[in-house]
Amino acid sequence: MDRTITGNYFEDFKVGQEIVHATPRTVTVGDTSVYTALYGGRFAVQSSDAFAQSIGYPKSPIDDILVFHFVIGKTVPDISRNAIANLGYAEFRFMKPVYPGDTIASVSEVIGVKQNSNGKNGTVYVRTTGRNQNGDIVLQFKRWVMVTKRDVGAPAPETVIPELAASVDPDSLGKALPPLKLTVYDYALAGSPRHWEDYAVGDKIDHVDGQTIEEAEHQMATRLYQNTARVHFNQHREAQERFGRRLVYGGHIISIARSLSFNGLANAFHVLGLNAARHAAPSFAGDTIYAWSEVLDKAELPGQSDMGALRLRTFAVKDRACADFPGVKADGALEDGVVLDMDYWVALPR
Amino acid sequence: MDRTITGNYFEDFKVGQEIVHATPRTVTVGDTSVYTALYGGRFAVQSSDAFAQSIGYPKSPIDDILVFHFVIGKTVPDISRNAIANLGYAEFRFMKPVYPGDTIASVSEVIGVKQNSNGKNGTVYVRTTGRNQNGDIVLQFKRWVMVTKRDVGAPAPETVIPELAASVDPDSLGKALPPLKLTVYDYALAGSPRHWEDYAVGDKIDHVDGQTIEEAEHQMATRLYQNTARVHFNQHREAQERFGRRLVYGGHIISIARSLSFNGLANAFHVLGLNAARHAAPSFAGDTIYAWSEVLDKAELPGQSDMGALRLRTFAVKDRACADFPGVKADGALEDGVVLDMDYWVALPR
Amino acid sequence: MDRTITGNYFEDFKVGQEIVHATPRTVTVGDTSVYTALYGGRFAVQSSDAFAQSIGYPKSPIDDILVFHFVIGKTVPDISRNAIANLGYAEFRFMKPVYPGDTIASVSEVIGVKQNSNGKNGTVYVRTTGRNQNGDIVLQFKRWVMVTKRDVGAPAPETVIPELAASVDPDSLGKALPPLKLTVYDYALAGSPRHWEDYAVGDKIDHVDGQTIEEAEHQMATRLYQNTARVHFNQHREAQERFGRRLVYGGHIISIARSLSFNGLANAFHVLGLNAARHAAPSFAGDTIYAWSEVLDKAELPGQSDMGALRLRTFAVKDRACADFPGVKADGALEDGVVLDMDYWVALPR
Repeated sequence: MDRTITGNYFEDFKVGQEIVHATPRTVTVGDTSVYTALYGGRFAVQSSDAFAQSIGYPKSPIDDILVFHFVIGKTVPDISRNAIANLGYAEFRFMKPVYPGDTIASVSEVIGVKQNSNGKNGTVYVRTTGRNQNGDIVLQFKRWVMVTKRDVGAPAPETVIPELAASVDPDSLGKALPPLKLTVYDYALAGSPRHWEDYAVGDKIDHVDGQTIEEAEHQMATRLYQNTARVHFNQHREAQERFGRRLVYGGHIISIARSLSFNGLANAFHVLGLNAARHAAPSFAGDTIYAWSEVLDKAELPGQSDMGALRLRTFAVKDRACADFPGVKADGALEDGVVLDMDYWVALPR
Repeated sequence: MDRTITGNYFEDFKVGQEIVHATPRTVTVGDTSVYTALYGGRFAVQSSDAFAQSIGYPKSPIDDILVFHFVIGKTVPDISRNAIANLGYAEFRFMKPVYPGDTIASVSEVIGVKQNSNGKNGTVYVRTTGRNQNGDIVLQFKRWVMVTKRDVGAPAPETVIPELAASVDPDSLGKALPPLKLTVYDYALAGSPRHWEDYAVGDKIDHVDGQTIEEAEHQMATRLYQNTARVHFNQHREAQERFGRRLVYGGHIISIARSLSFNGLANAFHVLGLNAARHAAPSFAGDTIYAWSEVLDKAELPGQSDMGALRLRTFAVKDRACADFPGVKADGALEDGVVLDMDYWVALPR
Repeated sequence: MDRTITGNYFEDFKVGQEIVHATPRTVTVGDTSVYTALYGGRFAVQSSDAFAQSIGYPKSPIDDILVFHFVIGKTVPDISRNAIANLGYAEFRFMKPVYPGDTIASVSEVIGVKQNSNGKNGTVYVRTTGRNQNGDIVLQFKRWVMVTKRDVGAPAPETVIPELAASVDPDSLGKALPPLKLTVYDYALAGSPRHWEDYAVGDKIDHVDGQTIEEAEHQMATRLYQNTARVHFNQHREAQERFGRRLVYGGHIISIARSLSFNGLANAFHVLGLNAARHAAPSFAGDTIYAWSEVLDKAELPGQSDMGALRLRTFAVKDRACADFPGVKADGALEDGVVLDMDYWVALPR
């Protein structure tokens, strides 16, 4: 019996297969502290039990993006250890708040496969579900990755491409919000007077600051999430590979961008869901990440009269300040330096 | 409406103005762990619940300097984002212990302004107050910073210079000490037999060891405190600035010095207050910080018959061991390499 | 009175002497989070309260190797501050689980001394005991280190060499295991179907992945353990020493190896004890650590019918993948690149 894990290859994935991912994880205040040390987040709801309680949470919930890292981190040994590229996300919704002390586990269902015409690799589509210790779904999303074949001669499977909604219906969002009373929301303590009504579709917001990435930081972050993808940790091996360096976990950039977005979106206290996210280019230690956001849409949230949803497109850009909003070029391609193009919904008090 | 924060400029500060700083912070055992990983502190009261309880604390309090970092970190976006220099501190007193689970928030009152003769910048004086979730003051201090003007043509405000005590009266110290019974204080577990009576005014103590600073460390520290001052995080921008590098947050040096001071001051279990502190020169990643202390004064503490206060002057010095106590030169200037000159009171068992 | 600690020299150690080490340490979920960020451990018992409870633990215990770091870290100022080399460990047994909230303290008894023929240094043997806040022994081991003399002219003490068992009797192991019911152990959540019976003496297991060490990481780790050995932290001083660089704490390599060993030994959920460990060569920042293990022996555990013990020899190797199991050369010497050779017992479900 082979005792070490070398991960699944393209031909190992069968539509309908359910994969139980290893190592459930109890999330604690310790994780929140390490996460704050890594990104410096300042959203009041996640930082202060007293603030969270004042609007109706039992205590500060775990940062949404940190929950995402835990849920996806567990999938790496099974889904993406042999992935060439992380192609996309869809129908990504937070369904239940996670609090310190909760234990998160993940399962994935294979919902599609499509071999590439080169015969060497293919796309695998999964629906990943993160649950707490009571079995409640805390996060669910679809994701597709390009995975290499172990044996180029293995026969191509029947192509199955799942339905992938272009965006999450706002009516289905907000399930991770407990009953809140936002009339008492303290805008001074939260860091900005700007509420949902102050934003308009088309607004562009420069998040101003930049964060330079260190090797120790992205390694510590990625290990905190128990994400074991080799490309992030092993300089001895990566020196021989295409980039010659360790790659930064794409999720690290998402966390930096979310943290930077406080400046301009201080009251966007909850990420409701993700419509899409594209890791447009790799990042490395030494890169400085800036970010800016555009308001794509606004929506009401069902049964939540005192808050509203903004659909944002946030670009993270490396080694380039964002005062001129570098994003999409005239020909539709992304500007040089864009490393993340993320389309998501956030909740703000109205 | 401009949605991003660019901070206040000199002409924005008005004497009497109160500024509520954003993002209250619940302090946890996770913060203590990250702080220990960053500085390696070994004071028994802050390290061990059992030790703290043995002398009368309900559990280990949060490290005093960590409380300071949280309180001052919140002021950065409002007070010192556009600061040129951190000029001084006065009347700095810890007023109440902070325990894991407490939530800290800060407010500042503008107590003085003085435009510089160059017309380009000026000194702003504030009194900053950190409070816990019950509204109790945990820390209060006066601080003055040099802040740039947005508009050089803005008229000079009327000069107001507040009273600033040269040192904190020891009779006003000790308010952050719960009732303690130091007769059972275990000197072996604490790491040294030396109590208050073993120190004399004029004693010089070399703290022996040195700590080399890494970029990841000072960045993680400064983000843990939610201190967003740009100069610490953005190499892309700093490469164009005067030093060409990220600057280390001055408070990081205070924490290193306090941690190193354990060797020689193991029973100085509580920082009572600060008379003054000067960040004498910038520090950068790669610098190795040493420290030494001189005993400036000794005092009784009101109502605390089993402990006493020492007034210390601690110098942190970079890339130079402190066996020869490098501090002030014959001409009164600081020796080369001194990065911190701090005058403060600590409590020891008698 | 000299107020700073310069540590004990060879002639300071007397057989029979008991040394109470400073700074008891309350271990928390914060420490677990920092530890996970540093090593990325994925053993389910230590990661998930829910998993730990399912098999009979009250909650996730603190990682065994982390307990070791805390216990040994306290001994450094007294035992190994002036050590030239860490020579060996014997009779190393975990005796009681440690949970978040427990406080650990250490004492050492000097059990042997032997001056070297060069007259400049000698070997000191100690038995170190780590206890929790109730005085229960959580870990005990013998250790010997080579310590320099302060005064070369000091007379040689009478040589005393203690008994040192070549390996720990498996019948004496397992005391840190609470009553467990491993019939409900979830192999899918734990990450591998392989239980005790799937391993045979002589099996060699490549743990596949590699971890590159950063200065900030090993410094943060070593400070987390309040281990103050100077060689790990002070580049200014080490630049003048033999290697020109900071040395990585040997225990950091043990933790990396244990974490890497998850791949191939996912169900080895508890380290019972250590027979021996040799830090074969120094490690530095920039080194990439790989590991592989050989099964040396198998044993039943007294009164534990649903689990068994494996005796493992794990090699950590730098800058060299372990597919060809680099360990001992034909002449009995270790292969180039081996930095750790560790012989220990682990428990797995049967």
